[in-house]
Amino acid sequence: MANMKIIFRQLFEKESSTFTYLLGCKRTRKAIIIDPVDITANRDAELIRDLNFNLSYAINTHVHADHITGTHKLRSFFPEVKTGLGSSAKIAKSDEKFPHLHIVTVGDISLEVRHTPGHTNGCVTYVEHGLGMAFTGDAVLIRGCGRTDFQEGSAATLFKSVLEQIWTLPDHFQVYPAHDYKGRTVSSVEEEKRLNPRLTKKKEEFIQIMENLNLPYPKKIDLALPWNINCGSEPA
Amino acid sequence: MANMKIIFRQLFEKESSTFTYLLGCKRTRKAIIIDPVDITANRDAELIRDLNFNLSYAINTHVHADHITGTHKLRSFFPEVKTGLGSSAKIAKSDEKFPHLHIVTVGDISLEVRHTPGHTNGCVTYVEHGLGMAFTGDAVLIRGCGRTDFQEGSAATLFKSVLEQIWTLPDHFQVYPAHDYKGRTVSSVEEEKRLNPRLTKKKEEFIQIMENLNLPYPKKIDLALPWNINCGSEPA
Repeated sequence: MANMKIIFRQLFEKESSTFTYLLGCKRTRKAIIIDPVDITANRDAELIRDLNFNLSYAINTHVHADHITGTHKLRSFFPEVKTGLGSSAKIAKSDEKFPHLHIVTVGDISLEVRHTPGHTNGCVTYVEHGLGMAFTGDAVLIRGCGRTDFQEGSAATLFKSVLEQIWTLPDHFQVYPAHDYKGRTVSSVEEEKRLNPRLTKKKEEFIQIMENLNLPYPKKIDLALPWNINCGSEPA
Repeated sequence: MANMKIIFRQLFEKESSTFTYLLGCKRTRKAIIIDPVDITANRDAELIRDLNFNLSYAINTHVHADHITGTHKLRSFFPEVKTGLGSSAKIAKSDEKFPHLHIVTVGDISLEVRHTPGHTNGCVTYVEHGLGMAFTGDAVLIRGCGRTDFQEGSAATLFKSVLEQIWTLPDHFQVYPAHDYKGRTVSSVEEEKRLNPRLTKKKEEFIQIMENLNLPYPKKIDLALPWNINCGSEPA
């Protein structure tokens, strides 16, 4: 997808089924990347250079538990890049911590930061109003949502976040999640409001569903969290 | 991506790294799917129903050698669906065989069929001029191209096809390939004309590159070809 001002690319990392998103401003040749992964950082850097962009920001929707962020690796290619996270991700290091409703601006790209805690305390959704896109991280997945049993997760909090911060976006806004495990790439606000099997339920039923998922302990969490709290670098 | 008239979805099958594309006409609720895969046909059918579409066409860019097409399975969900292939795919069965420059019309969606032989004799590229999208199959991949050492492949023929049928599209047209093995999802005509490491070469050098790839025998070809020639059904 592209409009006159912005180049947009969705990228996929197979091992953790993570989506990375690149947005580049055609006028200033500055770019921003959302949720890069360490093992695909070289690919991302190559694409950014191929498209003649310089990377201004490498930001995350939250402190990931299933992969190591690529922000640190990307800094070796783009020394001036700033890392960013929601300001509620208290324990994590980051060049910038975005308060609720902060606007991240890179050339003609504006990303509104909406705090959407619940999967983790520090989760945010980045909203690009011009193209109509919401990068929901693990708050809303396609026909699903992130688990709420780790990292101060809370089903009640997630339910409130989604209702107030995501369902209030225009129906046609595209929902770009941090993951999909079935090869789907995008959904829309209308579609998830109508079809999400968990988030279409009443609050109490949603909480009950989330409390009874009985998911296994995340494979990579003990490795990923300390690195991601340290911006993708090896913990000191 | 969406315009006022068409809903567009890119889908991914991890095992063979195949992209499937769904285009739906909002007015008539009729849809067309390009390069569906058998093992993700249920997912595709569910999405088509979720979006309130009926499937008019299930078409392929070529007779695939690395996976079994999902066209046959999709017919069990959508009995009226027509299958389609390029008319140069002589040996394969299909409800329709599209001649060069034929227009496949589904509601407000028009796909121009451009014969782009070289990877196989029957390869086509489907071009949607309204949104500016080319579904190139294995003719042009992102920074690559399909192999030319099987199924009557010919490097010289592929080179001619790409130059005459794909490089002649407007620079901004999006290139949607049948595969990507690095998690990239899309490129553009401009980008591939500038950066494709094979197809930016002179013809003789391109042929030499293709003749020296020394690729292994395709894992699934002996299974996939007989099925795909039979429209995704078990061969008689």
